[in-house]
Amino acid sequence: METTQITSAPTPAGNEAEQTRLSQASLERLFLQARSHAAWQDKPVTEDQLHALYNLAKWGPTSMNCLPMRLVFLRSAAAKARLQPMLAEGNIDKVLTAPITVIVAHDTQFYEHLPRLFPYFETARDMYANNAPLSKQTALRNSSLQGGYLILAARSLGLDIGPMSGFDNAEVDREFFPDGRYASNFLLNLGYGDPQALPPRGPRFEFEDVCAIL
Amino acid sequence: METTQITSAPTPAGNEAEQTRLSQASLERLFLQARSHAAWQDKPVTEDQLHALYNLAKWGPTSMNCLPMRLVFLRSAAAKARLQPMLAEGNIDKVLTAPITVIVAHDTQFYEHLPRLFPYFETARDMYANNAPLSKQTALRNSSLQGGYLILAARSLGLDIGPMSGFDNAEVDREFFPDGRYASNFLLNLGYGDPQALPPRGPRFEFEDVCAIL
Repeated sequence: METTQITSAPTPAGNEAEQTRLSQASLERLFLQARSHAAWQDKPVTEDQLHALYNLAKWGPTSMNCLPMRLVFLRSAAAKARLQPMLAEGNIDKVLTAPITVIVAHDTQFYEHLPRLFPYFETARDMYANNAPLSKQTALRNSSLQGGYLILAARSLGLDIGPMSGFDNAEVDREFFPDGRYASNFLLNLGYGDPQALPPRGPRFEFEDVCAIL
Repeated sequence: METTQITSAPTPAGNEAEQTRLSQASLERLFLQARSHAAWQDKPVTEDQLHALYNLAKWGPTSMNCLPMRLVFLRSAAAKARLQPMLAEGNIDKVLTAPITVIVAHDTQFYEHLPRLFPYFETARDMYANNAPLSKQTALRNSSLQGGYLILAARSLGLDIGPMSGFDNAEVDREFFPDGRYASNFLLNLGYGDPQALPPRGPRFEFEDVCAIL
């Protein structure tokens, strides 16, 4: 653990502190001690929790407030069964035992909402509608940013997460988004992880390996 | 504000609470009251803060621990001047007045590190090296996820942020990554925002508009 690097002036007490810097315990929950889980406790995630989760994550910033992320929460056995054939073998048990599996997707025509979401730039809709590579890249970048907010919003609410890319995106899209407008990005299991089942943590790069200050 | 939707059982007091759910003040700092800033107070961001920021954000999950994000922190006037010609006009003042502008980039050959970062899957390196569309999509998805962690890590440390996509990626890459291996994703201003300069907040979709539970 490199928590020793997360130091600064002592945190002042009370509400004022939270307005400037999160407590060490919160930093541990969000980042320093947080892990991706693959084994789940038999403890449900409620519909109220899913609403609370979205209603935190939605506030994260996106380019021109384009908000391309769309979410399908798979909770029922029937919904999980529809996803199962599209999963890499190593991800099947994770999905079947997780209380919720989220399909994190995006609206490939997100730009149709820009006149309402970002009225300040009148030509924004056409800029994307007329440039497929730009709109594709923008949808993937911003739905992934929103996926990052979703992951940390889940941890903020005391939930554990397990993201997965091992699945057939095209098949998931055909099954869950048959009109072709939404496209899957990645999958995310939600629930309460079993800490006893965690493997050792993977390494991370040091600051000097991947950062420069100019 | 829709903070009323973020409710659950009363938060227990003390350290135990932080291990399960962040305080309301922390949720406000990260999500509910957080804004993207374009005007900056004249208050520096230190090198220690940049290290602390990276050393939080690096713990966020990526696919096969591939960790593609690379960061260039532009602090000096000389470094900002190199970026200036590549910016959309509306972003020039934001960059020149921000204490730090970060080039959030990714390593297009991130897969060369997989044998060390994710030794459990021996063919992972070749799977990406031999599939340019897959590696490109994986780099963009995961460096954007990491960008989301970076944004919320900055807020966790009491910093404000302002992300920007309005710039010429190819020109930035030629100027800052001349060997062609790294590619810019988006820009992020860091500092202490001026709350007086904030415009009204943009709208967000309701849960029912963009989410489904199956």
